[in-house]
Amino acid sequence: MGAYPQSVIKLINEFGKMPGIGQKTAERLACYILKLPVEEAMQLAYTIRDVKKLVKICSVCFNISENELCQICTDANRDKSKICVIEQVPDLLVIEKTGTYRGLYHILQGHISPLDGVTPESLTIEKLLRRVKEDHVREVIMAMNLNMEGDTTALYLYKQLHASGVQITRLARGLPTGSYLEYASTAIVADAINCRSEMMP
Amino acid sequence: MGAYPQSVIKLINEFGKMPGIGQKTAERLACYILKLPVEEAMQLAYTIRDVKKLVKICSVCFNISENELCQICTDANRDKSKICVIEQVPDLLVIEKTGTYRGLYHILQGHISPLDGVTPESLTIEKLLRRVKEDHVREVIMAMNLNMEGDTTALYLYKQLHASGVQITRLARGLPTGSYLEYASTAIVADAINCRSEMMP
Repeated sequence: MGAYPQSVIKLINEFGKMPGIGQKTAERLACYILKLPVEEAMQLAYTIRDVKKLVKICSVCFNISENELCQICTDANRDKSKICVIEQVPDLLVIEKTGTYRGLYHILQGHISPLDGVTPESLTIEKLLRRVKEDHVREVIMAMNLNMEGDTTALYLYKQLHASGVQITRLARGLPTGSYLEYASTAIVADAINCRSEMMP
Repeated sequence: MGAYPQSVIKLINEFGKMPGIGQKTAERLACYILKLPVEEAMQLAYTIRDVKKLVKICSVCFNISENELCQICTDANRDKSKICVIEQVPDLLVIEKTGTYRGLYHILQGHISPLDGVTPESLTIEKLLRRVKEDHVREVIMAMNLNMEGDTTALYLYKQLHASGVQITRLARGLPTGSYLEYASTAIVADAINCRSEMMP
């Protein structure tokens, strides 16, 4: 990259650190910044600064928020008897987009993975157990990712919560809408058979 | 995106303006910034600021540079009798990477495209003609993109330069190394036949 000035090489490297951004894309993004009017480029720089200055973690559910409590925890219209447990913040948005869930959330900030040094203690599980005990929660919905780590985490939580008498549910497993049986994996089809439901035409 | 704080929505929008970055990627990049330690995130913000503050356009060839003249124009080892004419700065890097060219460059800052309002006057053509006349240039290499706009621009430059007696060359056209004849387009194969060269085993 000898032909680029030092500051541009640095910008390419900074962009290159971002997830899913390779060398080529990083160069394209740097060239985009070079072409931008100064005010617009500075807008991006200022916004990064603002996010790091303003965004905190909700003290109840660990969602991101500009206040002590997040928008969902402070929303009087949400059903406070349900907690949907997710691994990370983007998962919350995916569920919110469906518009089918009106309860609260709890962000674990990861999943149990002993090989990566992630023990139950390094997640927000203790706080979840306290919420269930103290906040009159009636249902906890397990919405971890559908892989081994997610399943392990859900099983661990189930064992911790079981004695409290709270209802414990998990997201439905089956064939994704729009898919073809022919191309589905054995595990998915097995789930779809095991979890089949009464047809109501 | 109602579940995100205001500043995060703004950051997603800023990322979303960048080329090739869709809504999903913009969200992922914003989440990456959220997770970063403050110093590292600010590093990106500062680098954007520095690039906008430090990077200028070389007054000779229109390459980017932190000085009045770019690294290539000031390099005593470059062959100053050759000018490779390209559309934009990233093209320069692609050629530099090959290590096969040791002359100078001239960045047109685009290509002639009357439909988009880009006339020869809005490019850096006048400056190129002056360089050819005043700087003892012996060869001008046309390295515009191999599409209609690039060809139009090359033809226009050819007409402007022809009378000066300078040697005018263009990049070779043919089949790209590693490709299969079966899948090449007619135009490419026609070029490859017309521009065939003596085989030297």
